[in-house]
Amino acid sequence: MPVSEEAFAPVALATVPQEPRQTDFQLVRVKSTWCRIKKGEDLSDCEDKITLSEAKIGECISESGISWTIEAPIYFCYKVVETYNILDPSNTTLLWGHITDPQQLELATSGKRKLRRFIVIDEVVDELYGSKVREYFEENNVQHKILALPTTEETKSMDLVLDILQEVQKFSIDRRTEPIIAIGGGVCLDIVGLAASLYRRRTPYIRVPTTLLSYVDASVGAKNGVNFLQCKNKLGGYTPPVASFLDRSFIQSIPRRHISNGLGEILKMALMKHKGLFDLLKSHGKYLLDTKFQSYSGSANHGDAALQTTRIAIETMLEELAPNLWEDDLDRLVDFGHLISPELEMRVLPSLMHGEAVNIDMAFMTYVAHTRGLITAEEKEQIIQCMRGLELPVWHSGCSWPLIKRALMERLKHSGGQPRMPLPTGLGVAGLALQRYSMTLAKRPWKERTSCGSGTARRCWKKSQLLSESCEPGPTVLPHAWSCSTS
Amino acid sequence: MPVSEEAFAPVALATVPQEPRQTDFQLVRVKSTWCRIKKGEDLSDCEDKITLSEAKIGECISESGISWTIEAPIYFCYKVVETYNILDPSNTTLLWGHITDPQQLELATSGKRKLRRFIVIDEVVDELYGSKVREYFEENNVQHKILALPTTEETKSMDLVLDILQEVQKFSIDRRTEPIIAIGGGVCLDIVGLAASLYRRRTPYIRVPTTLLSYVDASVGAKNGVNFLQCKNKLGGYTPPVASFLDRSFIQSIPRRHISNGLGEILKMALMKHKGLFDLLKSHGKYLLDTKFQSYSGSANHGDAALQTTRIAIETMLEELAPNLWEDDLDRLVDFGHLISPELEMRVLPSLMHGEAVNIDMAFMTYVAHTRGLITAEEKEQIIQCMRGLELPVWHSGCSWPLIKRALMERLKHSGGQPRMPLPTGLGVAGLALQRYSMTLAKRPWKERTSCGSGTARRCWKKSQLLSESCEPGPTVLPHAWSCSTS
Repeated sequence: MPVSEEAFAPVALATVPQEPRQTDFQLVRVKSTWCRIKKGEDLSDCEDKITLSEAKIGECISESGISWTIEAPIYFCYKVVETYNILDPSNTTLLWGHITDPQQLELATSGKRKLRRFIVIDEVVDELYGSKVREYFEENNVQHKILALPTTEETKSMDLVLDILQEVQKFSIDRRTEPIIAIGGGVCLDIVGLAASLYRRRTPYIRVPTTLLSYVDASVGAKNGVNFLQCKNKLGGYTPPVASFLDRSFIQSIPRRHISNGLGEILKMALMKHKGLFDLLKSHGKYLLDTKFQSYSGSANHGDAALQTTRIAIETMLEELAPNLWEDDLDRLVDFGHLISPELEMRVLPSLMHGEAVNIDMAFMTYVAHTRGLITAEEKEQIIQCMRGLELPVWHSGCSWPLIKRALMERLKHSGGQPRMPLPTGLGVAGLALQRYSMTLAKRPWKERTSCGSGTARRCWKKSQLLSESCEPGPTVLPHAWSCSTS
Repeated sequence: MPVSEEAFAPVALATVPQEPRQTDFQLVRVKSTWCRIKKGEDLSDCEDKITLSEAKIGECISESGISWTIEAPIYFCYKVVETYNILDPSNTTLLWGHITDPQQLELATSGKRKLRRFIVIDEVVDELYGSKVREYFEENNVQHKILALPTTEETKSMDLVLDILQEVQKFSIDRRTEPIIAIGGGVCLDIVGLAASLYRRRTPYIRVPTTLLSYVDASVGAKNGVNFLQCKNKLGGYTPPVASFLDRSFIQSIPRRHISNGLGEILKMALMKHKGLFDLLKSHGKYLLDTKFQSYSGSANHGDAALQTTRIAIETMLEELAPNLWEDDLDRLVDFGHLISPELEMRVLPSLMHGEAVNIDMAFMTYVAHTRGLITAEEKEQIIQCMRGLELPVWHSGCSWPLIKRALMERLKHSGGQPRMPLPTGLGVAGLALQRYSMTLAKRPWKERTSCGSGTARRCWKKSQLLSESCEPGPTVLPHAWSCSTS
């Protein structure tokens, strides 16, 4: 049977143009079928209801053939929600607090469909809250499976991800409407986040942080991951949860050292962009440690320091993460304290907690900033004093000079181009400094510096020993009306 | 030290409003720091250069606390590029054909930085092309590591992903500028895609398909994945490659059955949305099988059937994938042939190839469409005849009635709501039919139907036996000027 001319017509490419010819297409859906139309083409004479996509296809025809360029935006949307008494059966946040669409919410709450939830809980959290969790789902008549697991830096691996997924598969969940729930610290949330992201290429999940660190850090962003070959979070992704539910009352059950651990990440945000938060930590650090962030009503001397501290930490973090959710831009203020610490933390495991390793990194960088003339000796002192007030280590014997050098060199090597490192340029303001290709690293070890006195060491780093190029100072002129946390 | 009033000021939330109060924020960067500003706020009096993000943060303050809603678009961009003689050392497509940015291209081609590439190649492909691949990178002075692996449905697992990543870590690659290259069939491209997506949360990768199936299917979209617990592609993601480079000459080295295998997926696009493509397959199927798609110059009787066929297949596929890259919409025409086949393919492994299983699924659905009155007996006959012409099976003994039922029921159970299934509504047009919740499935097995004659079985399915509800027909009224493949 001969093929009609028309059969070939839709691909008008049999003749190769002399010059590459570029055509940009938009995509419209007519009933169930997507079609290309040339950009700017009039759609008004189409009788069917049409939907226009934001995706684009560019087509370039040249001698060597066709080259298509596909551009498609994906909209990630997630919630971070403060709640109280999350495990009180009358609080329905955990059941459908993640749902935004009114129709879906109606369907979910109608009782027409039996609710089903798969929950992964850290085994220590399970000991403390497991019975309440079970009661919660039983009282709400939710068919559920609770999987208690040891979730520590040592077990944070793809093996554990696969163990979880084996159970998920056995339980069998709906692809879109039955989010996996993670209850625990940052490691638990990271592992479950990765498991959910992988399962069927994306299964919704919910984060319920139970530590201060995960409350202000892991719960706020999109990242998930596991360790691999002794490297921290080497494997993972950026698929955010549908929601994080924050209940500060969990924090009362963690040891004092874990409070300090969380304060490390809060201090990071304070140093990078919020003088008010720094002042809060400086003045109320001990109170927050003593009360474990349980000051709900507020006291005469301390106001609602716990509430203010966590909210500012979350808001400043969200400001930095939301515009750069997939880290397309590698110049991130939130990387402060995270250049040397991943290497250090994994090397001395389990002797340093994450926030502690971050703090040691920040203390080192504070010295660097002072050496560079970015902060005064007094500012440096204030920062180090604040760290001590939060009962955070500013030093660890494992933080050897070769380790520091290796971590920074690796970053240079693998960041394609000229990476920049965040440094404080004052109290609560920061900038990004070029990390030179052929940087001359200071030879005298950091250890020597710190051993010369409790946070009073000075004149330790010569200018341009570690960093080079100008460090762009943080923003100074901001319209007063902005609700900008940096001002 | 007392905390100043100002310290608390930025979070103006200490007073809880009676009614929930919603504020929408945009994000602007001033130097290195991101700040929230109220939507619509004037930025003209800011002295610094500012950058506005497309991300948004909504804040809702109510009695139960604050709830933040984060919306952030991520722009995925990738290229699908036809090329010839990709392994000719003078063809630089494989080295920097993926780079769009002129500055990056200049840097890459300047010779200032030694090029490094990690390549994963299917071991069968390696036997055929390995020496050419080595020669290519050596002649172009690229420091490289070539990892040859068995990539089959049986080995398509997370274990293999981790094996690859162990080698990647050993080789050590730049986070952004050294894409991992996958050379092989769909399984190889899927595994490497997942490995790259996981490594450091996202490492760029390049796909070089060597089979017809992967040329028109795996290379075109964003999906990657591995099998898990005997379930096809149960784990994976949607991170697209930076580029797919298509060289049709690889196809000459695959067995005839593999050509049929690829034709199965091409036929899918033809049946769903392109009568011209269907006519091409009907008329030139045998020729394409005989010549293995190597008709570069075109012959008198067959025009440039191979070129036309692959291009239309890719363009129609891109039309459907680009607007729905992360499958937010589960109603997809490209799922035709993919409702029963995943279960079937894995069940009878390795007796059916992917395109063969897809074809059996399509043949079944063609009967369903006829029973529903969506296509005429003659159209059904034409489709089945075309399948036979492409040397594709329309039946397999493993495709039992319980298997079909289980696959469809699973879909009902896990698609949250009322899934719809794509069905032909003519030749080259299709619609989506509701798959009823309480569908009455036909009891007499498919096997019986097909055994009554080679594709001539009719009156086999009674109307509304399998499907219910109206099937929305495909688009009929399209402005003639549109370069829409459906018309």
